[in-house]
Amino acid sequence: MTERAEVGVGLLGLGVVGGRVFDELRRNAESFAHRAGRQLSLRAVAVRNPERRRELVGGCAALLTDPLEVCTRDDVDVVIELIGGESPAADCIAAALRAGKSVVTANKEVMAKHGPRLLELARDHGVGLRYEASVGGGIPIIGVLQRELRANEVRCVRAIINGTTNYMISEMSQRGASYQEALAQAQQLGYAEADPTNDVEGIDAAYKLAILASLAFHTRIEPQQVHREGIRSLSARDFQHAANLGYTIRMLATARRTERGIDLRVHPTLIPAHDPMARIDGVLNAVAVEGDLLGTVVLEGPGAGAGATASAVLADLLDVVGAASSAAPRAQSPAERTPQLLPLAEVCLPTYLRLAVPDRAGVLAELGRAFAAEGVSIASVLQVPQPEAANSELPAAELIITTHAGPDGAMDRVLSALADSDSVLEVGVRLRIEGDQNLETVGAR
Amino acid sequence: MTERAEVGVGLLGLGVVGGRVFDELRRNAESFAHRAGRQLSLRAVAVRNPERRRELVGGCAALLTDPLEVCTRDDVDVVIELIGGESPAADCIAAALRAGKSVVTANKEVMAKHGPRLLELARDHGVGLRYEASVGGGIPIIGVLQRELRANEVRCVRAIINGTTNYMISEMSQRGASYQEALAQAQQLGYAEADPTNDVEGIDAAYKLAILASLAFHTRIEPQQVHREGIRSLSARDFQHAANLGYTIRMLATARRTERGIDLRVHPTLIPAHDPMARIDGVLNAVAVEGDLLGTVVLEGPGAGAGATASAVLADLLDVVGAASSAAPRAQSPAERTPQLLPLAEVCLPTYLRLAVPDRAGVLAELGRAFAAEGVSIASVLQVPQPEAANSELPAAELIITTHAGPDGAMDRVLSALADSDSVLEVGVRLRIEGDQNLETVGAR
Repeated sequence: MTERAEVGVGLLGLGVVGGRVFDELRRNAESFAHRAGRQLSLRAVAVRNPERRRELVGGCAALLTDPLEVCTRDDVDVVIELIGGESPAADCIAAALRAGKSVVTANKEVMAKHGPRLLELARDHGVGLRYEASVGGGIPIIGVLQRELRANEVRCVRAIINGTTNYMISEMSQRGASYQEALAQAQQLGYAEADPTNDVEGIDAAYKLAILASLAFHTRIEPQQVHREGIRSLSARDFQHAANLGYTIRMLATARRTERGIDLRVHPTLIPAHDPMARIDGVLNAVAVEGDLLGTVVLEGPGAGAGATASAVLADLLDVVGAASSAAPRAQSPAERTPQLLPLAEVCLPTYLRLAVPDRAGVLAELGRAFAAEGVSIASVLQVPQPEAANSELPAAELIITTHAGPDGAMDRVLSALADSDSVLEVGVRLRIEGDQNLETVGAR
Repeated sequence: MTERAEVGVGLLGLGVVGGRVFDELRRNAESFAHRAGRQLSLRAVAVRNPERRRELVGGCAALLTDPLEVCTRDDVDVVIELIGGESPAADCIAAALRAGKSVVTANKEVMAKHGPRLLELARDHGVGLRYEASVGGGIPIIGVLQRELRANEVRCVRAIINGTTNYMISEMSQRGASYQEALAQAQQLGYAEADPTNDVEGIDAAYKLAILASLAFHTRIEPQQVHREGIRSLSARDFQHAANLGYTIRMLATARRTERGIDLRVHPTLIPAHDPMARIDGVLNAVAVEGDLLGTVVLEGPGAGAGATASAVLADLLDVVGAASSAAPRAQSPAERTPQLLPLAEVCLPTYLRLAVPDRAGVLAELGRAFAAEGVSIASVLQVPQPEAANSELPAAELIITTHAGPDGAMDRVLSALADSDSVLEVGVRLRIEGDQNLETVGAR
């Protein structure tokens, strides 16, 4: 970035977050100038539909439709990318970096898929690329991993980083809402989109976990390397059963360094009721980082929203303008090692199963054999009358089975055996259990 | 700091934290060199008693008794100050900065009393002064206030930043321990010093709050501007009474920006049982920051210990070596305004009182008049037989009174009236109540 008295800012996107950033830069220009040490002057804004925005932007900045044009203007020193999505955002960021502009982005998809390449590009051109807002909204987890925790060898990152699913799960857990009811409620409040796939299938969380794991382990994690399971199969009953076992269910994103490789997973998880993560309700986000020196720190706060995201975007802007970019390339250290990944089949965790079974003698015995055949040890069994049983021909029951820790692969084989068995009408849900509690104590409850 | 290939490091103090930093720098030299981009070479160590340390330090660094000597050596680029206490640490830091060395310190007393002057000195000499470890051990609150949250106008900082008192309070709350028992236990575990004054009187917490408030409000808060009250007068019964009212007691450090000035207090406080701060047990620390854009983020983790503190010290070391120091002066922005302080008498909070009163008719009526005279409205009254009553002449009772929010000054006048009244044998404790719950709901319980 050229060291002129004024810093030219280009803004891509004027949506909820972009609009808030725009307002802040205009309303608090003086205060930002003071904090940055230089005047920040908004030079150009790119929007899809200029007509709708002409009044807002007025004469204070050029209003363009082509974001690429903003990225290469001579009077722009820093580009703030708030378009979202992979294309054209990724190309815009690359173009800006190549043109010697520092870039601030909130784009998790771009950073998850192209982060390493773009960060190298930034290094090569001696400019900064900041993306604090891409994970956890206003929670300062990116900067903390890059700076304050960098003396640590990070062992584990556990995170609730998708507000939509956490809100839905809170509704199902606290108000006994069904998945469909929780989704409708989330959509009504604007927490979920018309097509909720990215959220409820864990795609959004996998993007964010890839970004966090790449930073935490100084390596390159691709989003598709993260094992994903969604929350569609959860029923309100699972939350009751979990509570009776001393657990709560959260959509947990986990990145764990093990001796045999990095364990990367996003899925609904049973965690002990006293786990700090169990207290994260609604649209809150939280990230727990365990380091070799530090022990564990937990950061929690609003994971989304215009204000929280703008807070991170504007801090990044002040950071690059503050010439900290010189330090950035080191902070954003390049991949130190290509990651050795731990196959999911080797992940060793206890399991929670909800099965629909015919209500007749011999069923438990046969199920027991299926588990024993794979060396999976059952920790607790609870049989309850199946809610649907009333209006179904054959008498059926619901079985809640928890196992002791066992390889995920063995559990897969148990499940396919159960699927083939006529002692099982349906495998309702299979959830993994994490946390410090072992199932002896739970089974004993 | 001169840009030579190797960075010379000088270490002042080789105690618990200094020893850990020393070990890490030696054991993980390669990894630190990679993260810093340059080799870190420990050149000199200052200790009080060299004989005891000669074997440990061996030939790898000069072993000196005069810390000032380390601060001015030509082969030292960065000084790590881990002596603690005000003198000679403050002079050593100043000498190092004047000699053009960057400094990393964990010294809360020095930063609270001399921080502004030393940070200016660092700016004037173009070097860095880092002090992440001075507050909250491994919790990255300093860096987060300097960087990730700096786009916010901070409204409030609430913190549990003294592990010793929080451990003692947890013991009193969970195991019904007396103050003396909790103190003895803390001393046995090494959490409290032989003379616990600094911790139990809130002096340590006031140092840390002054540092946080200066950063959060871009001003200069002196430790003596923080109102302090200790925990000596707390009894295990207060925790029971608080629990019955829906609260828990924590040694809370609060820095609040109000229209009439900055409110700075460290004292045991009743907070709602569901407040995030209520879950912080034992030696854990937590800091909640409320910003205008962000909302509230909470950072929690180990507030002390060799590893956690070393984590912060070493991150600061990597930070200054990483040349981020160029950005530091802006991040460590100078006092923007001299603070307008809110007089404690004008702070408006509900109050919790434990009184010993004679067990006779008319007492409540007279007390009621004392409150009414100052316009302080009582929210709830609980009378219990006084534990000591058995072995005392006159029959006595214990009164637990909570009030609605009222000016601290009015409550002072009520208390002096009560002290003079023969309807009050003793004012046991007076605690302030904070949080979102109002006392109507509490009184109604």
